[in-house]
Amino acid sequence: MITTLPKPTNRKPDTAIYERRESVVRSYARSMPRQFNKAENVWMHDNQGGRYLDFLSGCSTLNYGHNHPVLKQALLDYVMADGIAHGLDLHTDAKADFLNALENVILKPRGLDYRAMFTGPTGTNAVEAAIKLARKVTGREMVIAFTNGFHGMTLGALACTGNAAKRGGAGVPLNHVAHEPFDGYHGPDVDTAELLERRLSDPSSGLDAPAAILVETVQGEGGLNVASPEWLRRINAIAKQHGALMIVDDIQAGCGRTGNFFSFEGMGFTPDIVTMAKSLSGMGLPFALTLVRPELDQWAPGEHNGTFRGNNHAFVTATAALRHFWSDRQFQQDVARRSALLERRLDAMAAEHGLSTRGRGMMRGIDVGSGEIASIVTASCFERGLIIETSGAHDEIVKVLAPLIIDDALLSAGLDILETSIREAMTVPYGVAAE
Amino acid sequence: MITTLPKPTNRKPDTAIYERRESVVRSYARSMPRQFNKAENVWMHDNQGGRYLDFLSGCSTLNYGHNHPVLKQALLDYVMADGIAHGLDLHTDAKADFLNALENVILKPRGLDYRAMFTGPTGTNAVEAAIKLARKVTGREMVIAFTNGFHGMTLGALACTGNAAKRGGAGVPLNHVAHEPFDGYHGPDVDTAELLERRLSDPSSGLDAPAAILVETVQGEGGLNVASPEWLRRINAIAKQHGALMIVDDIQAGCGRTGNFFSFEGMGFTPDIVTMAKSLSGMGLPFALTLVRPELDQWAPGEHNGTFRGNNHAFVTATAALRHFWSDRQFQQDVARRSALLERRLDAMAAEHGLSTRGRGMMRGIDVGSGEIASIVTASCFERGLIIETSGAHDEIVKVLAPLIIDDALLSAGLDILETSIREAMTVPYGVAAE
Amino acid sequence: MITTLPKPTNRKPDTAIYERRESVVRSYARSMPRQFNKAENVWMHDNQGGRYLDFLSGCSTLNYGHNHPVLKQALLDYVMADGIAHGLDLHTDAKADFLNALENVILKPRGLDYRAMFTGPTGTNAVEAAIKLARKVTGREMVIAFTNGFHGMTLGALACTGNAAKRGGAGVPLNHVAHEPFDGYHGPDVDTAELLERRLSDPSSGLDAPAAILVETVQGEGGLNVASPEWLRRINAIAKQHGALMIVDDIQAGCGRTGNFFSFEGMGFTPDIVTMAKSLSGMGLPFALTLVRPELDQWAPGEHNGTFRGNNHAFVTATAALRHFWSDRQFQQDVARRSALLERRLDAMAAEHGLSTRGRGMMRGIDVGSGEIASIVTASCFERGLIIETSGAHDEIVKVLAPLIIDDALLSAGLDILETSIREAMTVPYGVAAE
Amino acid sequence: MITTLPKPTNRKPDTAIYERRESVVRSYARSMPRQFNKAENVWMHDNQGGRYLDFLSGCSTLNYGHNHPVLKQALLDYVMADGIAHGLDLHTDAKADFLNALENVILKPRGLDYRAMFTGPTGTNAVEAAIKLARKVTGREMVIAFTNGFHGMTLGALACTGNAAKRGGAGVPLNHVAHEPFDGYHGPDVDTAELLERRLSDPSSGLDAPAAILVETVQGEGGLNVASPEWLRRINAIAKQHGALMIVDDIQAGCGRTGNFFSFEGMGFTPDIVTMAKSLSGMGLPFALTLVRPELDQWAPGEHNGTFRGNNHAFVTATAALRHFWSDRQFQQDVARRSALLERRLDAMAAEHGLSTRGRGMMRGIDVGSGEIASIVTASCFERGLIIETSGAHDEIVKVLAPLIIDDALLSAGLDILETSIREAMTVPYGVAAE
Repeated sequence: MITTLPKPTNRKPDTAIYERRESVVRSYARSMPRQFNKAENVWMHDNQGGRYLDFLSGCSTLNYGHNHPVLKQALLDYVMADGIAHGLDLHTDAKADFLNALENVILKPRGLDYRAMFTGPTGTNAVEAAIKLARKVTGREMVIAFTNGFHGMTLGALACTGNAAKRGGAGVPLNHVAHEPFDGYHGPDVDTAELLERRLSDPSSGLDAPAAILVETVQGEGGLNVASPEWLRRINAIAKQHGALMIVDDIQAGCGRTGNFFSFEGMGFTPDIVTMAKSLSGMGLPFALTLVRPELDQWAPGEHNGTFRGNNHAFVTATAALRHFWSDRQFQQDVARRSALLERRLDAMAAEHGLSTRGRGMMRGIDVGSGEIASIVTASCFERGLIIETSGAHDEIVKVLAPLIIDDALLSAGLDILETSIREAMTVPYGVAAE
Repeated sequence: MITTLPKPTNRKPDTAIYERRESVVRSYARSMPRQFNKAENVWMHDNQGGRYLDFLSGCSTLNYGHNHPVLKQALLDYVMADGIAHGLDLHTDAKADFLNALENVILKPRGLDYRAMFTGPTGTNAVEAAIKLARKVTGREMVIAFTNGFHGMTLGALACTGNAAKRGGAGVPLNHVAHEPFDGYHGPDVDTAELLERRLSDPSSGLDAPAAILVETVQGEGGLNVASPEWLRRINAIAKQHGALMIVDDIQAGCGRTGNFFSFEGMGFTPDIVTMAKSLSGMGLPFALTLVRPELDQWAPGEHNGTFRGNNHAFVTATAALRHFWSDRQFQQDVARRSALLERRLDAMAAEHGLSTRGRGMMRGIDVGSGEIASIVTASCFERGLIIETSGAHDEIVKVLAPLIIDDALLSAGLDILETSIREAMTVPYGVAAE
Repeated sequence: MITTLPKPTNRKPDTAIYERRESVVRSYARSMPRQFNKAENVWMHDNQGGRYLDFLSGCSTLNYGHNHPVLKQALLDYVMADGIAHGLDLHTDAKADFLNALENVILKPRGLDYRAMFTGPTGTNAVEAAIKLARKVTGREMVIAFTNGFHGMTLGALACTGNAAKRGGAGVPLNHVAHEPFDGYHGPDVDTAELLERRLSDPSSGLDAPAAILVETVQGEGGLNVASPEWLRRINAIAKQHGALMIVDDIQAGCGRTGNFFSFEGMGFTPDIVTMAKSLSGMGLPFALTLVRPELDQWAPGEHNGTFRGNNHAFVTATAALRHFWSDRQFQQDVARRSALLERRLDAMAAEHGLSTRGRGMMRGIDVGSGEIASIVTASCFERGLIIETSGAHDEIVKVLAPLIIDDALLSAGLDILETSIREAMTVPYGVAAE
Repeated sequence: MITTLPKPTNRKPDTAIYERRESVVRSYARSMPRQFNKAENVWMHDNQGGRYLDFLSGCSTLNYGHNHPVLKQALLDYVMADGIAHGLDLHTDAKADFLNALENVILKPRGLDYRAMFTGPTGTNAVEAAIKLARKVTGREMVIAFTNGFHGMTLGALACTGNAAKRGGAGVPLNHVAHEPFDGYHGPDVDTAELLERRLSDPSSGLDAPAAILVETVQGEGGLNVASPEWLRRINAIAKQHGALMIVDDIQAGCGRTGNFFSFEGMGFTPDIVTMAKSLSGMGLPFALTLVRPELDQWAPGEHNGTFRGNNHAFVTATAALRHFWSDRQFQQDVARRSALLERRLDAMAAEHGLSTRGRGMMRGIDVGSGEIASIVTASCFERGLIIETSGAHDEIVKVLAPLIIDDALLSAGLDILETSIREAMTVPYGVAAE
């Protein structure tokens, strides 16, 4: 089956310009040393004729694949007609269309009532807006986030992020946030919601009354840890009881990645605030928003603003994406089928090597035991034409974030490569594999 | 002359969808109640056939006007060819092109040596990256910013911002930043650089040793206050002497707004770090970068990252903009001529009413004495078809941020409207004008 | 037996001067509305001839009772001889004597090697010094404290304190401290040391690497919660493993209250830093010190100072107390016997009403179920001539802090009063009792 | 005249016990290597028969000299009668006496209306209480303190302290405080109150609305800088206008040091809060209080507490001191005369060497140009039997803090020694003097 994939190139590009002029902070380019020039559907092409199956999808930013023809055409039409590219937060046709699509395609069918706040077009900005608003509405300062949570790199969001290396980059102490154990963090015998409830109910616990509880339903960067519906409902109830807002950060898990548009659908609770970004524009254009229950929308005009809030190109592609993929059940059914395939295949790989799997929907991975082994696996996949990355506290989870629109056969082909690469890494003596 | 401008519409659009679904945080849409649908060159069009001359330019994000044909064509070509839209921080042709243009068109001719860090595509993210890096490199925590400075709305950048209403939105105390008086803040007789030097040299002043001094050469949001070259050189020398990095936030003043590509050109000092955003993409697409002297580029890979760092569409338009406008001196000469015209006209208006002007290059305004009068002026301009806004601590500065590519006659026509509107606001009894 | 206690007065004193001139922040005076004028041994006398058995002992500040004749005489002799009363941190005979006694009577026999830092004479100052030093030595900022911990009211120590009402008084967020669950906090089935170890070992837990772990072996204000030796050893090992210092706050539990001079004696670990205050001077004079392992004594001269560091009167009484009580085993044997008596009696009271007891040594209490019942009990005791107070998150623990030198018969007599008062409070209908 | 002073000893004491058992944080003992054993009036005696005239007075803690007979007898009587030594914050005769004396001797004659809050008996604790209360009352977080201010070493007070070495000891960033330039800080031509007013009136200055302005009228540790009455009135007016409380830290300058009981008397303004400590007990016993205008006394009971709040021994000596020294004008007249003498002599020394003087009342010094010269001067004084110390950002001010009760002839004798020592240090070649 692997033979169905094209042979990738193996010549590294000339990187002199990057060495000279791009900051050493760059990261993905190090493990995927190619220069890419175009992309469509599930494929990325390098400038030497190589082609790669993309199981990274811009970290779930390209759920509908690269340059989806419907979205691409909408954007081309808009640009050609001199549609507003940049309009601060002025009313535009593109924005009105997006809001109407959001209302009719997403919110109404789900019985949800939110207002959209267009923040600066990055996930971290959506999170900053969410916690600012929660602090304003409650008059409290402390936010509860969770172990292994990832919420962004600007100072407010970074304080909510668990990763020590990221946190260390702040250069100042990260305050006003307490990290509590996520669902299952202390093993199956410890109910971490119970731990949290105990401390919030105790006036001498030292845990200040929180403005918000900020949670990912599936921790994308943190290792594909999945919160159960029961635990999330309990967390939501705890938030309510203690006067805090519940914020679901759906930046990575939303937009269909876990099967539904929102990752918390059907779980029996409604977050107060939801942050969205990544796949929201559908085509990878910068776009973020913070959904807020109307009664919490207590901002003063311009109290949180930004030059690029309301990216009109992204409104256009996002509207096209909502209408194309979410107007009926077809897409969700396809995703459900692919999720099942993915789960089955990963379970088999795990069983073969005594490993464990993680995740939910099309957001799944396999714990190969260490970051070193994981990087051998991903490097080996890359040599075979498959782009795939890791997550987790030790980068020990090989993470499959295939485009949701992937053809089932191609999904299988990609998983064949992964299977082979894991088998190699797990069976070949370590010293050899590492060469 | 005013008759050369088209009559704008005066019917407000249907705003029901915004009331229902957009957060009340929106601001510009309140004072410009139209729904816009397309824009080219210096014009914005509403969906009822009205046309507006744009002296706001997305707060200096559209220095080259709306949908400039060269940039627009570059983007269309790229999208049609399935160019990479989203690639995290992977190497792409579009990025390589941009880096080459940056090097050859901008850095080399100016004798500058910087590396580009592509942050999340918002100015605030570029600022967050800059101060993170300064803290990392120096091992210090405190950043010195200035009165009336504006640097963004995420928590790290917001701490550097002076505006109390914006700061209040944080919901937590904003720490690790001291605001020192900007050039001229205490009047012509007090040398504020001297005040700063005195305190930094005094081990008992309570002002901790700073990681960085963060400054705008012209304070865009803060009231178009201009720092003199002497003062900036002195600040740079103070930074050096006290082991701090000098960061120029050129997000609003850069990209030609003050006449040169960087606002600090020809002033006899080189910042350690420069933040850029707004007009950098040329077409209003989200894009930001932090320029860093190579020896300060001490990041660990991925230590500051983000999903939309390196917006490839923006690489394409930015490259086209750099090549089209900055390869020879023509554009700068045009801007210089228009700046002179703008200065002359504003000086005349100020002289007529005993007011004062502010600013530098094509970033100038007139202090009409109060935010109330200023809002009367801008509303009156809008009724006459001119989009124009205010800045300053009390919104008392009417700010002209015309596109740099504006035809001289249109610039004059727009200024005619401004002149008329100011005259009305200053001479008509206040109570009447306010109706 | 109760008849052996004298009848207390029941007329409230004239409190006009307090109403006019003392801040409303006063607290104990509210529940014990008498004006006291002298005190000796276990007795406090009011200015109307009443006498009270003192089971509060200045919150364990008067372990040797009031005005113990040996200590009193030492102080009188010193003052009469014009001994130095105040000498900043100059060398004095009184200080040298104290240091010698500390070395010979306390440290050497226990195989301990500490240096004494004389901080400002309050427990909170000793804690501030301890955490400052830990932060300096480790270069880290975060301190781990525990649920229900109490460490003082100045900003650094208050951040380590768990009580929400106390914390709320700060008026600023309390940062750089994480409160982790104390031994047994989550019930017998959850090993809280294990929870802590898990999070400190996980680089994505969001719990930053700590400078110190700050712990009370018995939480005096927090409800007489007792940490087991196993748990404390484990915490000490965790601190070592993660490069943090272990600080035992022995301010309330030290000086014999739990049976030995230090509360951690015989537990198989040695803290890096120990804070002492309360009963250290022996006579209730303000005195505090921070004991530091010599290799951690990395202060610059005067880096932490204060006007009253090294209270010479307190040196004199403390030296007398160390020599009188700690030169042989008699005192400890007496305390052990009284502790057993106290335990037996409290257990019986608890058994009678289905309640539970807390504490260790002569630092024990009974959980009467609510702060309301506890205040009924203590008020009823006071009417019968017994001074006793509460602790715990809800003030639900009636706390016996009798002087350690109390005669066994008097201890029994006081406990008889407590027994009667509890019986009344538990059996009389609540509504009646509360009248 | 110098011959009237006894010859001090010059043998250093055995310091082995300090080396072994006292923290290296000790400071004064380093420059005055003697072991003292008794003290009376203006004299300190070492244990080898030497006698020293004390121009340090425990940094103004011993304004009435050592072991003043009236105070000493009051204490002896109290202790012999088994007066309460420690009573938490219970009502005691000693406390009532003190409050009555405070009311009748101090407050009423001055037309002042304050309540006394007995904090932990250290100045830093009084400051912590003051800023806590200001934050609570105003609901704001930021406190304005001044360059060269010194307010204590616990975290809240340390944040208000200017000295970099002290601040560095915190180990965490010191936040929520802005240090503004003190009166005269930027030379005679810059009105620093005007600078402050400008920034507080500007909503974009970045200076958040303050809870309090905390000021010393004379900066004791900061170099004896004197604020003018006009400046202080202006600061008080600024505080009022901007809704902040004015806190005068009178810990060092109060209790007669500047001539009156409070240093701000007769200046035409009344602080909202006053902090007192040092000489308040009169005999050097630990004691501190925070005076609060009644309408600001908004504490909850126990919201700020502490074991040693309300040191009863100190109540006794403080009451005796208030009654003895402040019941009539004699003491103030004596202090005024001695202040004039001190001023005259220091001016003469300054004139002789082209130096400048600092200070007010009996809190004066001479700027000898550098900390190195100052330490030569003080060492030389010490060899001649005079205890004297330095202050200022560079320890460049030789500071005279003689007991206020000093006989005029002895004051002159001490100043003779200072004169001689300065003359030597200023005229002898530096290299020689430094040997």
